[in-house]
Amino acid sequence: MKNFTYFNPVRVYFGKGTIARLKESIPAGARVMMTWGGGSIRQNGVYEQVASALKGHPVAEFGGIEPNPRFETLMRAVAAARSEKIDFLLSVGGGSVLDGTKFIAAAVPFPGPEPWDLLSKHTPVRAALPIGCVLTLPATGSEMNGTAVISREATREKLAFGSPLLFPRFSVLDPESTLSLPPRQTANGVVDAFVHVLEQYLTYPAAAPLQDRQAEAILLTLIECGPRLLASPDSYDERATLMWCATQALNGLIGCGVPQDWATHAIGHELTAAYGLDHAQTLAVVLPALLRHQKQQKGEKLLQYGERIWGISSGSEEQRMEEAIAQTEAFFRSLGVRTRLAEYDIPAEGVRGIGARIEARDGKIGERRDIGAEQIDAILQACTK
Amino acid sequence: MKNFTYFNPVRVYFGKGTIARLKESIPAGARVMMTWGGGSIRQNGVYEQVASALKGHPVAEFGGIEPNPRFETLMRAVAAARSEKIDFLLSVGGGSVLDGTKFIAAAVPFPGPEPWDLLSKHTPVRAALPIGCVLTLPATGSEMNGTAVISREATREKLAFGSPLLFPRFSVLDPESTLSLPPRQTANGVVDAFVHVLEQYLTYPAAAPLQDRQAEAILLTLIECGPRLLASPDSYDERATLMWCATQALNGLIGCGVPQDWATHAIGHELTAAYGLDHAQTLAVVLPALLRHQKQQKGEKLLQYGERIWGISSGSEEQRMEEAIAQTEAFFRSLGVRTRLAEYDIPAEGVRGIGARIEARDGKIGERRDIGAEQIDAILQACTK
Repeated sequence: MKNFTYFNPVRVYFGKGTIARLKESIPAGARVMMTWGGGSIRQNGVYEQVASALKGHPVAEFGGIEPNPRFETLMRAVAAARSEKIDFLLSVGGGSVLDGTKFIAAAVPFPGPEPWDLLSKHTPVRAALPIGCVLTLPATGSEMNGTAVISREATREKLAFGSPLLFPRFSVLDPESTLSLPPRQTANGVVDAFVHVLEQYLTYPAAAPLQDRQAEAILLTLIECGPRLLASPDSYDERATLMWCATQALNGLIGCGVPQDWATHAIGHELTAAYGLDHAQTLAVVLPALLRHQKQQKGEKLLQYGERIWGISSGSEEQRMEEAIAQTEAFFRSLGVRTRLAEYDIPAEGVRGIGARIEARDGKIGERRDIGAEQIDAILQACTK
Repeated sequence: MKNFTYFNPVRVYFGKGTIARLKESIPAGARVMMTWGGGSIRQNGVYEQVASALKGHPVAEFGGIEPNPRFETLMRAVAAARSEKIDFLLSVGGGSVLDGTKFIAAAVPFPGPEPWDLLSKHTPVRAALPIGCVLTLPATGSEMNGTAVISREATREKLAFGSPLLFPRFSVLDPESTLSLPPRQTANGVVDAFVHVLEQYLTYPAAAPLQDRQAEAILLTLIECGPRLLASPDSYDERATLMWCATQALNGLIGCGVPQDWATHAIGHELTAAYGLDHAQTLAVVLPALLRHQKQQKGEKLLQYGERIWGISSGSEEQRMEEAIAQTEAFFRSLGVRTRLAEYDIPAEGVRGIGARIEARDGKIGERRDIGAEQIDAILQACTK
């Protein structure tokens, strides 16, 4: 097992009616900015519950944070928060709203002229406004970590940053607020959580058997829960299970003491930046091709994954690895998430150059740092088939 | 799934050489009291590493905290901490030293004349000295929770208390500091962690499939790791695995949103208080008998446990339940931990009256509150066979 530090101070309120916990969770006298997205919270009753719980606080609102939240949009919120002397941010929405809110939190007190440096230059976060979260879409895990991914329209970039200062002080997870999610967002959440786990699990053995089994616990649960939830979208229990799976998939726990990959995310972010694919769609496209390309490097864990998750115990090693990847792709497709670029009308020539762009910025990627421009282009070409 | 709140702010430093992290973790200028137990830290190099990391701090020492830490001993530490104006406690040892240190932390600022009220009257903890931990014995999980169990010699009581104020600020988990543990303490740690999981898992189904699988992850890992560790006590990897399992078994995670039992612990504490058995020995004795007694109430989860943990899939339900319990008892025995009271020279008449004592204090116990004096006595009589 590798050495690690684990620290996660987020207070999670999970269950029915927990939005009311906002009352005790936001400091008395705080000047609150409530951030939200496209307005679904006005349809599903969440807005009213939040407004009721915030009574007595001065509240500014900033709506319209889009999926893959944009720097350009968020900088308007930063200006508003500064002029209104906001000292607490309350994100009400999914992972995009929360990621955007994390950027606002860090940008408001940012001392330099260009808060984008937080992403492009990895300038450390030295101060941040406190954040609370009411989560309405289980997928990204942002509700229990200190990282965020922000897009910049002008440059077609999608970059990540993070800091312990960006952990939400609390996150309210009420599965009832997710009952009205449409199938596409539900399925995307399952895929997102599933791939978050695989990025931390499908690498190479590191004498971390508990972390392996904790990762497998989430995978097995998602495989059971995902199809059931799509068949019964009104099931509170299935909504609750997906919500807790998505949180556990990216709160740092299963990544303790093990190597991590994240190449699928790095490549996927480029596809979203260039073509606007949903984040989960990019993962569903890239992951199977990446696993096939890296089959030998990931062989031992792929075999373990195939056996423990998909029950694959016969055939040659090559056959078992291929079968594990095929089952993974079939799982995504069974949820209605397409897995090939052609299905999103992206031609082979449309993804050329992405590899060079990633390597120029990040160097080689993957758990062994062996995926460079050439390998990325090969993986993306395989995605077009 | 039941509603729950999850909050665990402990910073864990895990791995080789992490005792050096004390330097950055204890506030500058803090007046530190270092607490320890029987002196093993002077043999295994831990004392020197801690002393080196504490250079520059005024440090008082309080050694001699015994297994099942005693109120009488701890009150001497409270007096010393008050007179030395200690403002930071550093526990260096196993769960008993840390539990004792949690009591010291709460008792030093306790406003009333009788800090035992924290345990006997459940007087809430309103203030506590900050605590840091260097763990040298994986078992209790105290390093990542806010609870403690304290014994009082004069009254032969062993009682629990807890508060979010008693979470360690940080816990250093260096598996190297556990390499010299003797087989008995190693085996006790495996049993303790295993039973912690079962107290939160073997109840009744609560639509919490992820928590079930997270609990099963720890059980499966302990079953693999325990025997390997006893065969290879010098293995860093196995020591690390047990250490992380024990922490994960009682940091609140697997208890999220599920019913909990804890009857085995309640009964076991009485055996320790009366006869001085090791905590894990009491669990190994009580658990099998309790499971047999509560077989019908725990039926669904017992069958799941049998199938997923022990691979028991054939036979009548009754046979499968009995087999799951038998496998559990055999596992404890395979580690060298005896499972019957007679093996500890405790006769049947020696445990009479324990049931009445527990029910008078706690009411009925177990996840359904259906285990009272009569049931406890029946369980204990079964343990004598």
